[in-house]
Amino acid sequence: MIPTRRRGLKAVGAALLAAAFLVAVPAVALADEAGGSPGLPREELQFILNTFAFLIWGALVMWMCAGFTMLESGAVRTKNASMICLKNIGIYSIAGLAYYFVGYNLMYVDVGSVIGSFQFLYGPSEAEIGLLDGTAENLAEVVGNGYSVMSDWFFQMVFVATAASIVSGAIAERIKMWAFFAFTLILTAFIYPIVGSWYWGGGWLAEQGFVDFAGSTIVHSTGGWAALAGVLVIGPRLGKFRKDGTVKPTPPSNVLLVTLGVLILWLGWFGFNGGSQLALGSAADAVAMSNILVNTNLAAAAGVVAALVVSRPIFGRMDLFAGLNGALAGLVSITAAPDLTEHWWAVIIGAIGGVICTAAIKALERLKIDDVVGAIPAHLVCGIWGTLAASIAGGANFGTQLLGVVAIGAFVFIASLIVWKLMDMVVGLRVPREAERLGQDTAELGIETYPEFVLMPEEFDD
Amino acid sequence: MIPTRRRGLKAVGAALLAAAFLVAVPAVALADEAGGSPGLPREELQFILNTFAFLIWGALVMWMCAGFTMLESGAVRTKNASMICLKNIGIYSIAGLAYYFVGYNLMYVDVGSVIGSFQFLYGPSEAEIGLLDGTAENLAEVVGNGYSVMSDWFFQMVFVATAASIVSGAIAERIKMWAFFAFTLILTAFIYPIVGSWYWGGGWLAEQGFVDFAGSTIVHSTGGWAALAGVLVIGPRLGKFRKDGTVKPTPPSNVLLVTLGVLILWLGWFGFNGGSQLALGSAADAVAMSNILVNTNLAAAAGVVAALVVSRPIFGRMDLFAGLNGALAGLVSITAAPDLTEHWWAVIIGAIGGVICTAAIKALERLKIDDVVGAIPAHLVCGIWGTLAASIAGGANFGTQLLGVVAIGAFVFIASLIVWKLMDMVVGLRVPREAERLGQDTAELGIETYPEFVLMPEEFDD
Amino acid sequence: MIPTRRRGLKAVGAALLAAAFLVAVPAVALADEAGGSPGLPREELQFILNTFAFLIWGALVMWMCAGFTMLESGAVRTKNASMICLKNIGIYSIAGLAYYFVGYNLMYVDVGSVIGSFQFLYGPSEAEIGLLDGTAENLAEVVGNGYSVMSDWFFQMVFVATAASIVSGAIAERIKMWAFFAFTLILTAFIYPIVGSWYWGGGWLAEQGFVDFAGSTIVHSTGGWAALAGVLVIGPRLGKFRKDGTVKPTPPSNVLLVTLGVLILWLGWFGFNGGSQLALGSAADAVAMSNILVNTNLAAAAGVVAALVVSRPIFGRMDLFAGLNGALAGLVSITAAPDLTEHWWAVIIGAIGGVICTAAIKALERLKIDDVVGAIPAHLVCGIWGTLAASIAGGANFGTQLLGVVAIGAFVFIASLIVWKLMDMVVGLRVPREAERLGQDTAELGIETYPEFVLMPEEFDD
Repeated sequence: MIPTRRRGLKAVGAALLAAAFLVAVPAVALADEAGGSPGLPREELQFILNTFAFLIWGALVMWMCAGFTMLESGAVRTKNASMICLKNIGIYSIAGLAYYFVGYNLMYVDVGSVIGSFQFLYGPSEAEIGLLDGTAENLAEVVGNGYSVMSDWFFQMVFVATAASIVSGAIAERIKMWAFFAFTLILTAFIYPIVGSWYWGGGWLAEQGFVDFAGSTIVHSTGGWAALAGVLVIGPRLGKFRKDGTVKPTPPSNVLLVTLGVLILWLGWFGFNGGSQLALGSAADAVAMSNILVNTNLAAAAGVVAALVVSRPIFGRMDLFAGLNGALAGLVSITAAPDLTEHWWAVIIGAIGGVICTAAIKALERLKIDDVVGAIPAHLVCGIWGTLAASIAGGANFGTQLLGVVAIGAFVFIASLIVWKLMDMVVGLRVPREAERLGQDTAELGIETYPEFVLMPEEFDD
Repeated sequence: MIPTRRRGLKAVGAALLAAAFLVAVPAVALADEAGGSPGLPREELQFILNTFAFLIWGALVMWMCAGFTMLESGAVRTKNASMICLKNIGIYSIAGLAYYFVGYNLMYVDVGSVIGSFQFLYGPSEAEIGLLDGTAENLAEVVGNGYSVMSDWFFQMVFVATAASIVSGAIAERIKMWAFFAFTLILTAFIYPIVGSWYWGGGWLAEQGFVDFAGSTIVHSTGGWAALAGVLVIGPRLGKFRKDGTVKPTPPSNVLLVTLGVLILWLGWFGFNGGSQLALGSAADAVAMSNILVNTNLAAAAGVVAALVVSRPIFGRMDLFAGLNGALAGLVSITAAPDLTEHWWAVIIGAIGGVICTAAIKALERLKIDDVVGAIPAHLVCGIWGTLAASIAGGANFGTQLLGVVAIGAFVFIASLIVWKLMDMVVGLRVPREAERLGQDTAELGIETYPEFVLMPEEFDD
Repeated sequence: MIPTRRRGLKAVGAALLAAAFLVAVPAVALADEAGGSPGLPREELQFILNTFAFLIWGALVMWMCAGFTMLESGAVRTKNASMICLKNIGIYSIAGLAYYFVGYNLMYVDVGSVIGSFQFLYGPSEAEIGLLDGTAENLAEVVGNGYSVMSDWFFQMVFVATAASIVSGAIAERIKMWAFFAFTLILTAFIYPIVGSWYWGGGWLAEQGFVDFAGSTIVHSTGGWAALAGVLVIGPRLGKFRKDGTVKPTPPSNVLLVTLGVLILWLGWFGFNGGSQLALGSAADAVAMSNILVNTNLAAAAGVVAALVVSRPIFGRMDLFAGLNGALAGLVSITAAPDLTEHWWAVIIGAIGGVICTAAIKALERLKIDDVVGAIPAHLVCGIWGTLAASIAGGANFGTQLLGVVAIGAFVFIASLIVWKLMDMVVGLRVPREAERLGQDTAELGIETYPEFVLMPEEFDD
């Protein structure tokens, strides 16, 4: 039955609806001949459910872009907050375009062992286009794919955007806008798709038996390694590490928006992990998806509690920012194996994630590595932990997990380091000293984030 | 199988669950007689899927209300930000009630050529009520509608709220609250439903073969024309256009919330366009919905990038606000034909949308038309562009598209102009001069948006 | 058909996918023998749909946590806003863990008349684990449950978090963090599960015929009673009620985020009420769910409009904060019977809710009860109203409704009072006087919410 409410669409003979009608006829006829089943054929129904799950969960993952934006723009100092907004909406836009033009093909099309196809653009299958045009005989071929071609593209695209978002927070407040966008383009068009092809594309890591359900390593560590390379090349913010060995505190300028960002990410993660079941066409899929959401939530909750508890000895006070990062730590940690059926494992994995993230924040500070929002502890360190934990709790092979962590880490870190270094030599990564003091909002964008609010003048003692 | 976890509900013999049982019996019996199929009948299954898609996507469109609220309240000056919050929650509330009492019937019930029914209220069909009361023989009639009656109402209601939201940003910072609410009531009860009936209601434009998939013209241009009429009647803000020909800059007072608003709108748009497929009951629907989400995302991404690139020559700097409006421009532009199967067209349409929106922001400034948030460039200008683009890329007839654009534009603009003018004469649209200087928050609402923050005093040089 | 895009997952022989294959075989065989139906068996399909509805709607309810966080942290004074962020993310984490370790079993497992099981932990059924491991013979047992075990847990868990969130706003700005977390633990592990077992667990109230569809009483009044007990024990904020009988105004410090919070809650409520249909496996379920969303929206809209209208006589001005609370009032009010088929009843119920909430805000002030965000008027008072309204509009027995309201109210209020009092005696509930003046952010957390913004010094005249 075709909805008729918006009759205008029907009256003009929209091809889609016509197609749906044509398609419907033979199936119904078949059912009638058989004297019984008026149901949708199993394959078509599963196709619909799988596709819809990709779209809905994918939309929630897109929402994580808003989470990163709020988290990062609330975490930096006010003078750089608009730049973070620009970078984040730029990341999501560039990632989507790059993945459409190049990335998806490299990651999923004709993947040999280490890379896919170099063709340009991606689109629906010919069978799908035929089906939309009303050619019912394409139906079997279409549904034989299991889900619509572009629903999968959509779901994978929001993942590459997530990986890229991780980078912007770590190297905030001193990197030139254009340099950052250029790196984003390379990361989303090439670096991420290549390591993605090794596992999700069916390449050599998949053949080894590596397990990384929704991307603790593929997505989060990849983003984290790229960020670490960037931070090492560009160095700390002016005055962050003082000559006397003390560290200049740079607290979040807007705690409410940092918190909002974390809650957005938490919500989006249900799509990130739940959608990675990749199917909703059987009771087993539905059961697995439920377990995944429960584990995701438990790990995040345990990460918050554990991080808050250990923040007191580590930082000398109950630290909200550690607690918020603890949520992300738990989420990243469970992402390699969110389909565990013993949920207390999720509590343990998330709690350990929360602890090591908090410790890593402190350790980076000791190492004079200036990661503005704690992206490296949350995404890189916990991404590694989660991937290894999948062998402890989820039955994956420890050696293979380690191999995957090291191989992907080495490739992403080295490739990123080369790109950052090259860009630094050619165009320069870092904004001029005066621009950094003034803030990128005024210096590069010519705006202020809160132009009507009176702000504290910042002291410089470098 | 009826879920039994909340046994309380079952124990009290809730009518709904009983109904579900009764309904289930004959269908199962049929299946057993036929010796095989225990599946849900195709029509009932499609009914469920179509209905659920309306509800889920509709909920995301409701979320766009939060997007407009954040975008607009962050874009105005602080002294008017609370008023924008009030207006936006008022819009959504009034629109929902007006559409329930009057609007939906005018738009969809017994539509002749130019208008529907003048009856009051709307509700589930008698067959549906019967089904809920346990009368299983209504099942065929219920599912024969294709989706539940009120799921469609819900989905259409959030659309009218969107159209109304567009107005508030353009005429912000000087219009009286009550006058604005009165206009909102007329727009959502009458103006929007009437033009909606012409096409989606199956009226004369539908018969002409007009194509506007999710409402570039019906929703966005309608909102834009109503806004333009309002802006022309009420005039620019005090001091916006100075006597020496210069323009007073009025930058967004809270850039982070403007950015959040745009990202909310982007997410909501997946519901806006995806849900406008109106069905999820076949593989063709699922394929189309996937293509729609992909095009929606690509157009927005291209709009951002294009707007940022051209903002430098147009405004003399990389302009974040132009980039954010570029996202909306891309989204509005693709809305008339988001079901294209060649996705590079979405990139082109969105990119052009981003360019013309940025240019239109500058042009309005030259024309001394004071649109506070850029609603007219993004929604009206790009709405027109998108509707015409549907003939270039989507195969619609150019003349018919132009006819639709002109007819709807003329009706909405003239009707709005009359309403605004009448209200201006009778009660006055504009707040007193002193209230405008002081800000509507203090003058009309007696509150401050950020009462504890120290704000810059505003200069007046008019 | 199994999606094959992420081939990595398949290549490693993921148990889940294998299971899906094994499961699929007999059903398909059955269909082929019967000569017709290739559809999914009805029970499995309904299992999938019911489960997916729990997950999607449950994710939206989780999002309400962000709504409470924004509402409350924007409503308190700046000096306590970070503490509210910490409390809210803590609430959600603790509630999720407590409900996993203890609460769910108390509420739903082996419920006699007044309490369920004292066992620890909760997890998927053995049949489900078997199914995931590839044992296809478990399929009938799994789908016989109607939905996956953990999807229900997830949906119920976000409800307990909602109840706990209600408390934090009322007693904000003076309660010690650890005391608050301890109460949250007791509320979510014991108090809420016990009253929940009486009705949703199938206990004595269910047997009496009590009706509370999605929890006007079970969730919202429970939170409200616990908040009221806390407010009475801890007393008003320093200086709130002056010696001369006047009330110190403490307006929201960030109106935009309060508004955002309300809009988040509005969106989340679609999940709260819509998901409480507990099923999506029949046309009757889909119809009911549609009606529920429509009523939810109409009641909220009517609450806004009614609250705004009466705010002028009650507060002497059009009050935005009253209007925002009016939305929540409408939502809480309709929650006991959102499945009404006569939608104008939702308008009436919501409008009355908006009026009594606004009046109750004023009344609490007169009674010198200091509820920082209006949680008691919105959740407790309107929760009672909604539960009683279910007998006026929805056909429930008035006496039984009153019995439920009184019994749950008495239990929750007394239990909470005892817990608050005990904690007050043992560890002290209230922060030291100096910490309250300074603000909990600085005094307890050692941070500032907006460290770079210049804020007004607060006056103290107590």
